[in-house]
Amino acid sequence: MKEEPVRQRLLAEATRLFAERGFESTSVQEIVVAAGVTKGAMYHYFDSKDDLLHEIYGRVLRMQMERLTRIADGPGDVRQRLYRAAADVVETTVANLDDSKIFFRSMHLLAPETQKSVRAERRRYHERFRGLVAEGQREGVFSDRVPAELVVDYFFGSVHHLGSWFHVAGPLTGAQVGRHFADLLLTSLGAGHVDE
Amino acid sequence: MKEEPVRQRLLAEATRLFAERGFESTSVQEIVVAAGVTKGAMYHYFDSKDDLLHEIYGRVLRMQMERLTRIADGPGDVRQRLYRAAADVVETTVANLDDSKIFFRSMHLLAPETQKSVRAERRRYHERFRGLVAEGQREGVFSDRVPAELVVDYFFGSVHHLGSWFHVAGPLTGAQVGRHFADLLLTSLGAGHVDE
Repeated sequence: MKEEPVRQRLLAEATRLFAERGFESTSVQEIVVAAGVTKGAMYHYFDSKDDLLHEIYGRVLRMQMERLTRIADGPGDVRQRLYRAAADVVETTVANLDDSKIFFRSMHLLAPETQKSVRAERRRYHERFRGLVAEGQREGVFSDRVPAELVVDYFFGSVHHLGSWFHVAGPLTGAQVGRHFADLLLTSLGAGHVDE
Repeated sequence: MKEEPVRQRLLAEATRLFAERGFESTSVQEIVVAAGVTKGAMYHYFDSKDDLLHEIYGRVLRMQMERLTRIADGPGDVRQRLYRAAADVVETTVANLDDSKIFFRSMHLLAPETQKSVRAERRRYHERFRGLVAEGQREGVFSDRVPAELVVDYFFGSVHHLGSWFHVAGPLTGAQVGRHFADLLLTSLGAGHVDE
C-alpha cells in the first residue's frame, strides 16, 4: 500500500466504497479514512466527490479510446478491425466492472456540467466506433439496413449492461464474452463469421 | 385528475418525481403533496417508498410478461415469434421509458429482499424469452454458435439501455427502433431477414 501513489489509492478506495455502498451513501470522510490520507491530501488531487466519480470513469474511457484508435487505425480489413474493437471494449469493461457499474448508477447524480463533459467524451468514443460500422457499410461489406448510429446504440447497450449480470466467478471470461459479443455484432451486420 | 384512482395517481406522481429528481432525493411527503392525497392514503396502498419503486417497475414487467407469453405461445414459426417478441419489448419499454430509467438507476437502493424478488421476476421473463432462442437453435433455424443465455443478455442490455439515449422527439419511434433491434437480433442468429 505504502508505495502506491496517494492519487491511485484514493481512486481505488473510492471505487470500492461506491460499488459497495453507493455513491450517495459514501462520504469524503470515509474515502480518506479508507485510503489512509488526510482530507487536505484528497483535495490536492480532487475537487470533490463528483470529481472522483468523474475520474473513475474518465480513466477507463481514456484507456478504451486509446485502444480503439490503435485498433481502428491498425492493420486488417474493416470486418477484422470492428471485430477486434468490439471484443476489446467488452474485455476492458469487464476488467473494470466496478467502475462502469458505479458510473451508470450514479451519473445522474453528478453536476450538470460534469454530466455534459462525460457525455461529450463518450460521444467521441461512440463516433469513432460508428465510423468503423459506416466504413463497412460504405464498402458494402456490412448490411446498411439498420443505420450505423442505431447499431452502435444496440451494441453499447449490451456493453454498458455487463455490470448487471457478469460475474468474475461465472462460466465465461471477459475475453470469451467479448468474442461472443463481437460475433453477434458482426453477424448482425451480415458480415459472416470472423476468425480471430 | 379527480376520477383517477388514488393508487394510479400516486404511481404517476412518484414516477415523475423519481425521474426528475432521483429516487434518493424524493420524499414521501413530496409524493403525497403532488398526488394531492394524505400520507395515510398513501400508506393504505404502499408500505414505503421502496414499495412504490418496486410497483412502478413491477407493473411494466407484468404487462411485458403477459404480452411475451401471448406472442411466444401464439401463431407463427419461431423466427416470426422471436421477431415479434423482440420488437414488442422495445416498443413497450420506450412507451414506459421513465419507469425503466428510474429502475436501473435505483434498484441498488432497494432493500435486499425487494431486489431479490425483482430479480426473480425479471429472470422469469428472460427465461421465457431465452426459450424462444433455444427453440430456434434446437430446430436448426438459429445458429447456436453463441449460447442462448448470452444472446439474451446481449439483447436485453440494449433494451435496458434505451433510457440513456432514446428521445421521444428523436427521428425514430419506439416501434421503428423495435423493428431495427428485432432485425439485428434475428440477423445475429443467422436467421436472415424477417418480414413482419
